[in-house]
Amino acid sequence: MNKVRDIDPIVGVLVAESGCVLEDLDNHVQQFGYIMPVDLGAQKKCMLGGNVSTNAGGLRYLRYGSMHGNVLGLEVVLPDGRVLDTLFTLKKDASGYDIKQLFIGAEGTLGVVTAVSISLAPSPKASQVAVLGLSSFSQIQRAFVLARQDLSEIVSAFEFWEKRCNEIVVEFEGYQSPLSGAHEFYVLVETRGSCMRHDAEKMDTFLKTIRDEGVIEDAKTFNELKAIEDVWLFRSQMANAHNKSGCMYVYDFSLPSKYQFDLLVATKSHMSSLNLYGSEDSPVKDITIFGHIGDQNIHLQVIARSFGGTVEQALEPWIYEWVGSHNGSVAAEHGLGAHKGKFLKYSKSPTVIGTMKSIKQLLDPRGVMNPGKHVSCA
Amino acid sequence: MNKVRDIDPIVGVLVAESGCVLEDLDNHVQQFGYIMPVDLGAQKKCMLGGNVSTNAGGLRYLRYGSMHGNVLGLEVVLPDGRVLDTLFTLKKDASGYDIKQLFIGAEGTLGVVTAVSISLAPSPKASQVAVLGLSSFSQIQRAFVLARQDLSEIVSAFEFWEKRCNEIVVEFEGYQSPLSGAHEFYVLVETRGSCMRHDAEKMDTFLKTIRDEGVIEDAKTFNELKAIEDVWLFRSQMANAHNKSGCMYVYDFSLPSKYQFDLLVATKSHMSSLNLYGSEDSPVKDITIFGHIGDQNIHLQVIARSFGGTVEQALEPWIYEWVGSHNGSVAAEHGLGAHKGKFLKYSKSPTVIGTMKSIKQLLDPRGVMNPGKHVSCA
Repeated sequence: MNKVRDIDPIVGVLVAESGCVLEDLDNHVQQFGYIMPVDLGAQKKCMLGGNVSTNAGGLRYLRYGSMHGNVLGLEVVLPDGRVLDTLFTLKKDASGYDIKQLFIGAEGTLGVVTAVSISLAPSPKASQVAVLGLSSFSQIQRAFVLARQDLSEIVSAFEFWEKRCNEIVVEFEGYQSPLSGAHEFYVLVETRGSCMRHDAEKMDTFLKTIRDEGVIEDAKTFNELKAIEDVWLFRSQMANAHNKSGCMYVYDFSLPSKYQFDLLVATKSHMSSLNLYGSEDSPVKDITIFGHIGDQNIHLQVIARSFGGTVEQALEPWIYEWVGSHNGSVAAEHGLGAHKGKFLKYSKSPTVIGTMKSIKQLLDPRGVMNPGKHVSCA
Repeated sequence: MNKVRDIDPIVGVLVAESGCVLEDLDNHVQQFGYIMPVDLGAQKKCMLGGNVSTNAGGLRYLRYGSMHGNVLGLEVVLPDGRVLDTLFTLKKDASGYDIKQLFIGAEGTLGVVTAVSISLAPSPKASQVAVLGLSSFSQIQRAFVLARQDLSEIVSAFEFWEKRCNEIVVEFEGYQSPLSGAHEFYVLVETRGSCMRHDAEKMDTFLKTIRDEGVIEDAKTFNELKAIEDVWLFRSQMANAHNKSGCMYVYDFSLPSKYQFDLLVATKSHMSSLNLYGSEDSPVKDITIFGHIGDQNIHLQVIARSFGGTVEQALEPWIYEWVGSHNGSVAAEHGLGAHKGKFLKYSKSPTVIGTMKSIKQLLDPRGVMNPGKHVSCA
């Protein structure tokens, strides 16, 4: 199941089987002037069917949008063996319920996705990156608002991480920091457009604006392909570096903008109040956040000296309760899997979970698809 | 139910009640630097709940995408009176089945949408329009491919209509044609960006490319607000003008790019073979198409001298069969309503329709929501 079945080169629609590797598809469609509308750190290995079934988000969601918007059709084998064929290649379709949407993010619990029709994005002709150094989280948000104004249609990523994340990547991966000085926060802003000269001018305007407003402490631009790749490598090794730095509890949440930074403050405060964090020999060494500003998705890491015990008990379910009570999602882009179904109740109401379960019962009455996972354990 | 409940000005998310008028919301969010991600000819009257329930497409789908991508959450009153609250404001959410999607395009048959959370688009700082005159439909498609290359991220609409449509608007609305000469086809290409100087330069490059390649016969650009509005008015009066020109049968289809023009050819040929079209006193006066190239959505008009009789019998269900057999959708952006449910079978398989009906039965077992419409008559 790794064949490209069809491509519409005029409007940019690909039909491919679910076993196709994302990067292979990206290379294939570039000859027609397109790119895949999703890219992840795992793109060399992850497959299209998995991207759909986990509702993959990724680094450039801000620009290219969600699987729910980009997937145009699916071929799904239902639990009873029938094939549900919605493999249309049409962008506009208002004929009946959009049932393919149920399978996006269902993690295989309703059927097996065997082929996907997906809308492609035009291949950019120009790309550049700037790394910013900032002193506060609110300055990151201000920089994002100004980027939407000055860079507008060419912004393709707006990533942030904090000082300790930067130190951890330098220490455990051996990479050089993209900025020479130390800052409380860092931002990676990437543009993708069709004219390098225009894009560079827009970036200059943006950097001048945020400098003049006192939003940043430092900024450095990267225009060469190798330099851009190096900056992205620094960013993409963040999770690995944390993993090497100790025993990592890692969380993937979405939160409304106004609560994003509070999560870090609350977690530090909670763990300190239990004497688990804050002094040199505390069971928890580090608590950090990084993430994607434009789509409200943040990754929180709690680095302990050992797994289990009081640290784990202090973290869960407390952290899911906190996220749920601040209108967040307990699974932003990595799904529920076997572990997080039981925490779904903190961010979805009984009516919503009940409706999900009734749909599971309707489509898979014998419970044979990916049993015991996802909403089955909610 | 016409209140704005909340706005996240940093990432651009609006929560509003379903009775809010689209244009009012657009005006409201502009103070925060955003626009609504959908715009329709009916924006002065249509309401947000209706936009969601009909899965509205509109003029700039090409740029801003679908309701399925932009709607982040819904508040829905279920047939049994319970409130299904998925009114989240989060762009990334992979926690369970995305059940709100079922209500997008359901035309009120599964529940009543009372509030909507929707992702906004950054407000453009610059806009311009060019009207092209072309000699063939394949030249329109070639111009679209080149626009995706040269105008890329700033293209916001790519509309086409044919010679007879142009004549009908001139004759029945009294508007002046945007081009002085007559052409087999016309295209309206609009850009929206953040720098007028850059956008004008990109438009010049695009026009030079399509002139040099011999893709167009004529082109005229419009930069002043009033002139842009006039061109859009010409385009938006197309359906009205056709309606004034005779007894209009109007169809709203999506078709793969390669079959779009064939629909017109096939319809003319079919009606001619039945002696209903082609001579001066034929029962059918005109058969025309116009539409949105980038999203495969075309509107076909058959203008008869009187309603009913042999013309209607010749058209339906023949035209739905033709669209279904060419992998098209029988309802692109105007939904199924009371009339088109029975034609759903031409573009969706029995398994797909059966699954839709089982979902209707699950959520509305007593059949009290918008009875006899939509999939209920499929």
